[in-house]
Order: sequence, then structure tokens, then C-alpha cells
Amino acid sequence: MSSYEIAVLPGDGIGGEVMPEALRVLDAVAGEYGTSFTFRHFDWSCETYRETGRMMPEDGLDRLRDHDSILLGAVGYPGVPDHVSLWGLLLPIRREFDQYVNLRPVRLLPGVTPPVRDKQPGDIDFWVVRENTEGEYSRLGGRQGEGTPAEMVLQTAVFTRHGTDRILRYAFEFAERIGKPHVTSGTKSNGIYHSMPYWDERFRAIAAEHPDVAVDQDHIDILCARFVMSPERFDVVVASNLFGDILSDLGPGVTGTIGVAPSGNINPERRFPSTFEPVHGSAPDIAGRGIANPIGQIWSAAMMLDHLGEQEAGAHVVRAIESVLAAGAVRTPDLGGTASTEDLGKAIAAEI
Amino acid sequence: MSSYEIAVLPGDGIGGEVMPEALRVLDAVAGEYGTSFTFRHFDWSCETYRETGRMMPEDGLDRLRDHDSILLGAVGYPGVPDHVSLWGLLLPIRREFDQYVNLRPVRLLPGVTPPVRDKQPGDIDFWVVRENTEGEYSRLGGRQGEGTPAEMVLQTAVFTRHGTDRILRYAFEFAERIGKPHVTSGTKSNGIYHSMPYWDERFRAIAAEHPDVAVDQDHIDILCARFVMSPERFDVVVASNLFGDILSDLGPGVTGTIGVAPSGNINPERRFPSTFEPVHGSAPDIAGRGIANPIGQIWSAAMMLDHLGEQEAGAHVVRAIESVLAAGAVRTPDLGGTASTEDLGKAIAAEI
Ligand SMILES: CC(C)[C@H](C(=O)O)[C@@H](O)C(=O)O
Ligand SMILES: CC(C)[C@H](C(=O)O)[C@@H](O)C(=O)O
Repeated sequence: MSSYEIAVLPGDGIGGEVMPEALRVLDAVAGEYGTSFTFRHFDWSCETYRETGRMMPEDGLDRLRDHDSILLGAVGYPGVPDHVSLWGLLLPIRREFDQYVNLRPVRLLPGVTPPVRDKQPGDIDFWVVRENTEGEYSRLGGRQGEGTPAEMVLQTAVFTRHGTDRILRYAFEFAERIGKPHVTSGTKSNGIYHSMPYWDERFRAIAAEHPDVAVDQDHIDILCARFVMSPERFDVVVASNLFGDILSDLGPGVTGTIGVAPSGNINPERRFPSTFEPVHGSAPDIAGRGIANPIGQIWSAAMMLDHLGEQEAGAHVVRAIESVLAAGAVRTPDLGGTASTEDLGKAIAAEI
Repeated sequence: MSSYEIAVLPGDGIGGEVMPEALRVLDAVAGEYGTSFTFRHFDWSCETYRETGRMMPEDGLDRLRDHDSILLGAVGYPGVPDHVSLWGLLLPIRREFDQYVNLRPVRLLPGVTPPVRDKQPGDIDFWVVRENTEGEYSRLGGRQGEGTPAEMVLQTAVFTRHGTDRILRYAFEFAERIGKPHVTSGTKSNGIYHSMPYWDERFRAIAAEHPDVAVDQDHIDILCARFVMSPERFDVVVASNLFGDILSDLGPGVTGTIGVAPSGNINPERRFPSTFEPVHGSAPDIAGRGIANPIGQIWSAAMMLDHLGEQEAGAHVVRAIESVLAAGAVRTPDLGGTASTEDLGKAIAAEI
């Protein structure tokens, strides 16, 4: 019997509402597969910030370090500037634990009506592999001439050989592993003068190591348009931190699954815990009403099971999500129904 | 009788095929409105680069300077790295002539089937106002440790008070002028640490000068998703150089008009000529076959008329485009027909 210690950080807003449903589903599946989970709860949030001036205690990262995985809800709430809350909690976790892969499925699901026409489940089914530790998300830079007409701000993106090659390599190996040997690279080497030509150069170099994988290189502007016009053309899309962020929200936008999509922030070498969290944010507009869709959180827990080596249990959870969606009897308002967060969580747990 | 001197740069690929159709339509409309055009042709292109090592002659910008406007086709062709061709022609023109506004309509047109469902012409009708001279498109930065494992590239974005305030102000004034007092700002202040919080700060400051204009601030990831999920919510969207680039390709992607969408690179003070060009690129895959859709180029010419003060003539051209599209008899392959570039150009000229 394998047992796992999971750090549970609901965070802000609807994070605290969807998290219990993910834990419910994990408990349900644990029995089936002879595993057990110990959940350690951490209530770090924008609330903590308002009380202590910090998003997490000074030894916060150390307190997370020895867990097998981290399950995160959502971070950010009105009243605390986003760059304070995110750089005080979410982004340090990604970096300190070297979670350099942000992996997100884009999948048209049964029972979900997407905004695009003429697509069936199966037509849209791909993965976004996003660089998660460097690139455009950087604190390098600053302001000069504050308050004068000459005021200006510099913001420096960082692309290292180490960081670029490892994410590209992961994308190629992942494409081979899932049996879809086709990688599309998001770039903007026609406009962004230094970093993107370098990204292209490394893409070509890593592609040469994987001659059996078909490749495309699309500028981010037309790539976004193609996500809408011809989403069926993609299998694995690899992109920088910023471009990957955009693509992995746009993809679920196209499939109608913003409230449903999961993500893994993965340290593939398992030297550190990986973090699993829904793509959606803390949604202050609907927080506190018990109507948030918990599937993003539950599917994130399924990705966690996969990463922990419990692939069968993970696949079981995904199947349960799909059959509840396909049956269509229990839907939260974002899916056109009237069910509560808890109703939908219980329906999925019952399906297991 | 007003007469205008227009610099005509077809550029690369399909640029040379769609440009004659725009000139045909301009000649047709000129007669109706008692204006005349002198077209000065410049054949600068990737071809020039292969012959001379430069995209344009050393005094290229000076030779363009005294024209009333510039009509551009498309720049970029396989064999010449994109960042070489674009930074050798298109981007210096935008910067040297201080064309700090890149203005692009996103409009669902009659006779065009968009990839999104349940939308009618009129439902999607908004403008992207893109900063066009600074921001993420910068040559600041470089490479260190070339060829070693420590290799790294820095890329620095520049946001000045001058450059940020003027584009934001343009967006607010434009929204008032067109009678749609609602501006959405694209940001990413939760991830991009210095520049985007500054963008937000200036957005709030300029918004305060325009209390009658409604505002939204959306992070670029969810903003892209909303372009697909709820495009009817937008009126004027203002964004940085990179974000505006992405949004103004995604918008036409959503409306099915990538081959049709126009753009203006505008110096609102008219100290320098403005440039009008289609959103599409040089499309090497279909170049030379006479099947490219010329509407993007023709509609760009209509935007040029508008900028030159010939609003009635400009509106006439747009109406001609719309009625030919609505009639549906003459369509290029991208619109599902078999007409040639020339067929469609002639049909629109005839409509005038
Ligand atoms: C060709 C490229 C440099 C250009 C840009 O990114 O500005 C194009 O995509 C555009 O939008 O005009
Ligand atoms: C909240 C924000 C900083 C974060 C990001 O941009 O990485 C989010 O959008 C995500 O995609 O996980």
C-alpha cells in the first residue's frame, strides 16, 4: 500500500470551495487502488498577506518541501495587487521547486458545448507544454525617472540554454511517449529580436535529436488564430512562459472548458514536489456562492495521481469526470446547469 | 481637387498580387470623389536583401518621408530570417515615422462564416488599438556565453511614460469619437513584474481623465479566451505592442477574416506618413498562384482614405467590399470559392 503526503493549499476565492471536492474524489479513489493520502492543510492566501504582510511564512517553502505533491486552489484576490500575491506564493513555488514544466491538456469533452462550431469530442485533443521558471516572467528590470515625463520601465526576459533546452526536450519526449510525434513551437522571432530567434535556434537543435517527430513553428499571433480556426491540427504545443500561459487559457476557451481545465507544474526529475492546480483563477465574482465548477481541481488531482505513478487511479478519475459530464444530469451554472460545487463533486466521487 | 502621393511597397510573396487590386479600387473611387492619386512604386523586398544585403537602400526612409501615405503589402520570405527582413523594413518604418498607433478592426462580415457559432454580423464589431513603437518589440538585449552550457539571452522590453500615455489616450479618444465609450486594457500584471503593473497604473491615470468611458482590465490569457467565448463584449481593446499583435490576429481568426482584415500604422499628428497594410503576411505557401484574397489590401486602402480625410470615399470602399462579400458570387479559395485575386479586385472596383 503506497501512501502519499499531500500539501493542500486552497488559496483564495473559489479555491476554498473546489478543493474539498478534489479531496473527496481522492479519498474515493484511494480505497479502490489501495493507496492512502495524508492531507496537510496550509491556509496561506491573500488573507494571510493582509494580516502578516506576507503571502506565506518565511519558512513556507521549506514546510512544503518534503511533501509528495502540492495541490493548489487559486491565488489572488481584490485588494492585494496581483503581482504581490502571485510573486509571494505561486511563482516562488514554481521556481524554488524547479517545476519547469507546466503541462495542460486542451480537450473537447463530452457534454460540453464549445464556442467553436462543427467540432466533436476527439477533434480537439492536444497538450500545451509551457516553460515555467524563466522567460518573460522575470523580476529583472525596474523604473527610472519616477513621476517625471522621462519616466520609463524596463522589463527583461531571460532565456537560458539550460532552461530552453530542457523544456523543448521534455516536449519532444512527451510527444513520443503519448504516441503523437508532432510538436508545434510558439515563437515570435519576426518581432522579438533576441530571445525568440534564440528559441527557434534551440528548437531546431532539439528537433534534430528527434528526427521522427514532425515539427511546426508558428508565430504566436497566427498560432492563436489557428487555435480557433483549426484546433484539430495540434498534438503537442511547446512555448515560453508567457506564450504558454496565453495558449493554455485560449485552448480551454476554444473547447468551452475554462472552468474545467487542469494543470501540472512539474519537476520531471522528482527532486522536488510538483504542484497541481486548476487553470481557472480565484474568481472573486462568484466566490462564496458554492457554484464554482470543481472539475478543474478534481482533474488536477487526477494529473497528480498520474505524476505520483498511480496512472490507473488517475485515468479512473478522468473517466468518472467524463461520464458525469456526458450524462449531463449534474452541471454547475458555467456548464448551463444549477448544481452546486458539492453536488458535482459528490456525483464524480459516486461514479468512482 | 485633392491629390495624394502614395508610396506603394508590395513587398514579398502575395504582396505583389494583392497590391494591384487595391490600386485598381483606389483609381475607381478617385473618379467618384474628385481626388487623384500618384503612386510611387518601391520594389524593396527580401529579393532586394538577397541582392544587396539590405531590405531597402540606405536612404530608404528619406525617400518615403514626403509621401502622403504608404501602402504596404507584406514583408518576409523563406530564406531570409524573419527578424532580418522585418527589422530591415517594416519595423523601422513604424518607428522612424512615429506610427505609434496600430489600429485594426475586428468585424464579423456578411457572407463570411466564422469558426465560432451563433454569431451574426453586428455581434462582433470592435477595434484593437495596439502600441506600435516600443514595448516588447525591442532590440535591447543580447547573448552571453555563446555555444557554452551557460549560454543565455536577455531581451528587454521598454515602456516609457511618453509611449504608454499616448497610446492609452488615443484609445480613450478613439472610443469617444466612434461613440463606443468602453475600453478594455490587455495586461499581465500578475506575471510580468515591472512593465505590466506600470501599464495598469497609467491605464488608471488616463482612464481618470475620461470618466465617461467604461473600462475593463483583463489579463492577456483570459482576454484571449474571451475573444473566443464572448467577442460581443468588446468595443475598443488597447494593448502593448506584443499583446496587441496577438489580439489583432486572434480577432480576425475568430471572425473568419484573417485574409480580409486591414490595419493602419498611424501617426495621428500627421508629422509623418502613416502606413496601411493587410494583417495577413506574405503567405509563401500560396504566393504566385493568383488566388490570394485582396480584400485585406483593399480595406487597408479604405483605412488610408479615411486617414487622408477622404472619409466618404473610404466608407464607399468598405460598402463595396461588404456588398460583394454578401452577394457571395465572387470568392477566393480562402472564402470557399474559386475566384482569382484579380476577379475579386475587379468585382469590388465594379461595385464602385
Ligand atoms: C511581421 C510582424 C513583425 C508584424 C508584427 O508582429 O508587428 C505582423 O505580425 C503584424 O502584426 O503587423
Ligand atoms: C496567476 C498567474 C500568475 C498565472 C500565470 O500566468 O502563470 C496563471 O495565469 C496561470 O496560468 O497559472
